Amino acid sequence: MEKNQKIVLASRPAAWVEESNFRLEESAIPEPGPNQVLVRNHWLSLDPYMRGRMSDVKSYATPVQIGEVMVGGTAGEVVKSNHPKFAAGDKVVGPLGWQLYGVADGAALQKVDASVIPLSAWLGPVGMPGVTAWVGLLDICAPKPGETVVVTAASGAVGSVVGQLAKIHGARAVGIAGGADKCRYVVDELGFDACIDYKAGNLRGDLKEATPKGIDCVFENVGGEIFDTLLGRMNPFSRIAVCGLISQYNSAPYPMQNIGSVLINRIKMQGFIVSDDLTRWPPALKEIAGHVAAGRIKYRESVANGLANAPAAFISLLKGGNFGKQLVKLSE
Amino acid sequence: MEKNQKIVLASRPAAWVEESNFRLEESAIPEPGPNQVLVRNHWLSLDPYMRGRMSDVKSYATPVQIGEVMVGGTAGEVVKSNHPKFAAGDKVVGPLGWQLYGVADGAALQKVDASVIPLSAWLGPVGMPGVTAWVGLLDICAPKPGETVVVTAASGAVGSVVGQLAKIHGARAVGIAGGADKCRYVVDELGFDACIDYKAGNLRGDLKEATPKGIDCVFENVGGEIFDTLLGRMNPFSRIAVCGLISQYNSAPYPMQNIGSVLINRIKMQGFIVSDDLTRWPPALKEIAGHVAAGRIKYRESVANGLANAPAAFISLLKGGNFGKQLVKLSE
Repeated sequence: MEKNQKIVLASRPAAWVEESNFRLEESAIPEPGPNQVLVRNHWLSLDPYMRGRMSDVKSYATPVQIGEVMVGGTAGEVVKSNHPKFAAGDKVVGPLGWQLYGVADGAALQKVDASVIPLSAWLGPVGMPGVTAWVGLLDICAPKPGETVVVTAASGAVGSVVGQLAKIHGARAVGIAGGADKCRYVVDELGFDACIDYKAGNLRGDLKEATPKGIDCVFENVGGEIFDTLLGRMNPFSRIAVCGLISQYNSAPYPMQNIGSVLINRIKMQGFIVSDDLTRWPPALKEIAGHVAAGRIKYRESVANGLANAPAAFISLLKGGNFGKQLVKLSE
Repeated sequence: MEKNQKIVLASRPAAWVEESNFRLEESAIPEPGPNQVLVRNHWLSLDPYMRGRMSDVKSYATPVQIGEVMVGGTAGEVVKSNHPKFAAGDKVVGPLGWQLYGVADGAALQKVDASVIPLSAWLGPVGMPGVTAWVGLLDICAPKPGETVVVTAASGAVGSVVGQLAKIHGARAVGIAGGADKCRYVVDELGFDACIDYKAGNLRGDLKEATPKGIDCVFENVGGEIFDTLLGRMNPFSRIAVCGLISQYNSAPYPMQNIGSVLINRIKMQGFIVSDDLTRWPPALKEIAGHVAAGRIKYRESVANGLANAPAAFISLLKGGNFGKQLVKLSE
């Protein structure tokens, strides 16, 4: 009889996440209760926010408990449904976590059309990362045509959509990424106006060259020294959408020096979590799906094969080892 | 023949301002040109922003040049007018700087009624500091009834109005000030709910006790360690109006550790300068003048006597030595 496989939180990380913080377990395939749906997951999304859930500290979401399945967005196919809106064979996206099979209430699942846009993309540009990009860029930064938008982690799932949306809306898009390969991709494939390789060791000078008119919008995914350097290049009345601070999740906080720029330049800086306002999802997904289907928004995936490889892929993601949206393929 | 006296910028400060950075000069009393008005200043306002104008660095305003009269807000009486809207004897507020006499275009002056509210108060609660408090508190922080507002430099010209306005609008007002005397005044005279003496050495613990439900709004005048500590107490969806960072004006930037709170708590942090949007002044002054005339907003003045004492009073202000709005009395 086929079993379910799942990865649970074995222990909390002290600083950097290690593979020993996870444990692969087998269990029976669960039965859906009333109004519930059993899903076979084909894709697991790996995202930086998961690092926060591994720690037992006050944050915007409750932590995963030791022994519980790791949280995560998934895309898969309905196996058995006790919910009137779903039938076996439907393709769905939901929060089923790091496991092959999962059960959810119908209300937690979203039926998707995988005929034009592939199933995996519903975890990327037309999923949570894409909506995150749309909300931070258009609701918080709100760039005007001709303004300069800088986005960190520019080749990633969120950053790549931020820059392409910025271009579509008439702004100048400048990416920051780690390594020449990623920067080439950001400019040549995604169409950003410029990209700065922060590993090249000349961040401040390269930033000045790439932003001759200063910076009007920052979409911040990374934090730390890069964020501090960007603060020093902001224009009056500029905006900063704080989406992530991935460089800070595993280490002592970087001591920021340039907060004075917030006052001098009357900057609006705002932190946000895409799940805070679910009313923004439908308009965001509608716009992005149009751009993806028409090829105006491109995306790239970094795929790990098999659930057992999820921990290593996640650790790599936290260190910038992914190149594009990090996924785990859960089916052959 | 009577002469004008003025204080000019003699040299730029290296770090802390010193009296040798200023020079008292005499000159002829100027003649007003077409549409200009000659004013005898009775009161000079001393404000932290003047520190920025003494340095030759990129900021929101052009610096004072060496040998030029120091900038500053003044309240006085028209001596001679070539402008149809002003006549000798009118009481006016304007930007005439650190001097006994000044000439300005009529458009730069505001006629005030000193019969109900004393002339000096038009440089304080019903002047630039009051409008600053109103804009930062009501436009940026926008506290809801029952929310907790924390304001730094709480006994000062801006902070005292912030807390009293917060109370009037139904919020809990917590001040931070330097010294037991100032804190007593903030609570007993101004009616704040609590005040923390940051010099008492228990900022974090005292803050926790004074804000049992966390912080929803910060009105920040000080920066540095106090600001960083406040960031650690912010509630989800809280707001920070960054009005000043006085602790940072004379020293190396304090390395901020708690910027992560902006993301975790989805904080909106916004820097502002009260002169950016002049359309906010009339509604602000109208509301505050009503509260001051009715005794709902109280204020306190720290008065230095005579122009020659302005440099020492300004240096004291930068170190928190003032107690209430710092003024210089320019007439006997």
